[in-house]
Amino acid sequence: MPVTELPALLGIMDLVGIAIFALCGAVLAARLQQTFVTMAFFALVTGVGGGSVRDLLIGAPVFWIHDPWVAPVCMGIAILVWFTPHRLWDGALLEWADAAGLAAYAVLGTAKALEYGVAPVTAALMGVITGCVGGIIRDILAGRPSIVMRPELYVTAAALSAILCAVGTVLDGTNWLVWGLSAAAGFALRGAAIHWGLAIPAYRHR
Amino acid sequence: MPVTELPALLGIMDLVGIAIFALCGAVLAARLQQTFVTMAFFALVTGVGGGSVRDLLIGAPVFWIHDPWVAPVCMGIAILVWFTPHRLWDGALLEWADAAGLAAYAVLGTAKALEYGVAPVTAALMGVITGCVGGIIRDILAGRPSIVMRPELYVTAAALSAILCAVGTVLDGTNWLVWGLSAAAGFALRGAAIHWGLAIPAYRHR
Amino acid sequence: MPVTELPALLGIMDLVGIAIFALCGAVLAARLQQTFVTMAFFALVTGVGGGSVRDLLIGAPVFWIHDPWVAPVCMGIAILVWFTPHRLWDGALLEWADAAGLAAYAVLGTAKALEYGVAPVTAALMGVITGCVGGIIRDILAGRPSIVMRPELYVTAAALSAILCAVGTVLDGTNWLVWGLSAAAGFALRGAAIHWGLAIPAYRHR
Repeated sequence: MPVTELPALLGIMDLVGIAIFALCGAVLAARLQQTFVTMAFFALVTGVGGGSVRDLLIGAPVFWIHDPWVAPVCMGIAILVWFTPHRLWDGALLEWADAAGLAAYAVLGTAKALEYGVAPVTAALMGVITGCVGGIIRDILAGRPSIVMRPELYVTAAALSAILCAVGTVLDGTNWLVWGLSAAAGFALRGAAIHWGLAIPAYRHR
Repeated sequence: MPVTELPALLGIMDLVGIAIFALCGAVLAARLQQTFVTMAFFALVTGVGGGSVRDLLIGAPVFWIHDPWVAPVCMGIAILVWFTPHRLWDGALLEWADAAGLAAYAVLGTAKALEYGVAPVTAALMGVITGCVGGIIRDILAGRPSIVMRPELYVTAAALSAILCAVGTVLDGTNWLVWGLSAAAGFALRGAAIHWGLAIPAYRHR
Repeated sequence: MPVTELPALLGIMDLVGIAIFALCGAVLAARLQQTFVTMAFFALVTGVGGGSVRDLLIGAPVFWIHDPWVAPVCMGIAILVWFTPHRLWDGALLEWADAAGLAAYAVLGTAKALEYGVAPVTAALMGVITGCVGGIIRDILAGRPSIVMRPELYVTAAALSAILCAVGTVLDGTNWLVWGLSAAAGFALRGAAIHWGLAIPAYRHR
């Protein structure tokens, strides 16, 4: 794959993930019967939080600051949710869309970190951070236990995508097949967790 | 206005906002009967938190790190509050001073982001972040619901100043009149909220 | 001391602090009977959180991102704690090791900030941030009151090491004696706090 295609692809995957995550954030604010200010903050933070922390850590310019579309899209989604009944959005479809965004973001974050010369283990962590940290910051703002403190299988699915992407890229270079399979694996694992209510075990030594 | 005046003006507006916000943070620690460590942390975080997040996001050097005055001023204010009865500071005057700091910071943050080439919608968000995020981080540290989760009209006033500043600058360039009017509008709105106890409505669809 | 030795020394002190702090974070997750995901997050955040915030603020590349060892060490410690009874780690020894890490990190953080041209008061704050912020972020994630809100003498010990290091470096330049004595003073103060249960007083004016 020519190097020049990479930024365009990253941009498209970014916009997909951002829109889905912003929607999840705005819908949570609606479910909690919050104000528009809370809804706009939740949309923005959930949409761009993980990628922002990743970019700050790897020393990249924060992706949405000089992009003319990302912030308006997040604000637009907040406005859309504000003027519609949240039952329109809040259902199984949103949870599955979030699973797709999670897997895409984990792969994207890992790939971007590898592109910046980060070693594989650290790059996989950047993938997990990209997928999960926006929701974590939102939950801290909301005063709710974040996904890091819940046994629900969520971060683990992001980690699966991120690790497969890092390993695949080390073995075989940057290519669409590695990215697609990594994202599919994480999406499948998260989907199984949604469908069967899977949780990961707690520490049990005494 | 010649470009060379900009940094000096930004510096002065920054110091005003920092001192007021640091005082608000320290007084909160006093009201909560906390230790000097908490008070110093609250003064620093409330004073510089919002501007730090803005600078990290827009890729600017964090404004207070290489400034010889900001950190000593925050620590000095913490020491001042520690050795005085907090009733001396904690009243209507402080709330109005905070409103002035909020409006000034929202304008300053928006102007700085625009100066760094950030698009208007994103720049207005940077203004809101500059005005509100220091207090949000402090409230998270304190385990209190932050202003983002309260219906009180506060973030909205910062948003008004930030949006007017962004729109005015796009239409008419950087000038004192746009800045002054933007700050005055946000201050007036926040003042009205203080005086009449205004709140913004919650999401009501079911 | 030749300048070229500095990075190597900083690297070694960093690894010591990181390993100890990561162990403290992982053991807390074990004590709280959390999942491996929580344990890995706590190990990473406690290990690298403070240094990351310092590096972002002073404009340095975040120290662990391009280091091939730091992230694997944190993950390795999480795996080690996961497969062993936490009573093996969780005792007085860990608390004393944490005290050593705290003092070392406070000195290291101050020295690195001074090296980046930061003024003494701000550099000392960077030292305190380096020593304490990882644990603070972890406690916020866990929904526990962080060390900033507890009267326990902890941040104060980091502040003692950081202030001595800043003053000593201003008076006498970068040298091992200043660093060793600064770290020893903070360690002794924290040790006294552990041994005699020392706490700092709360604000008492009314």
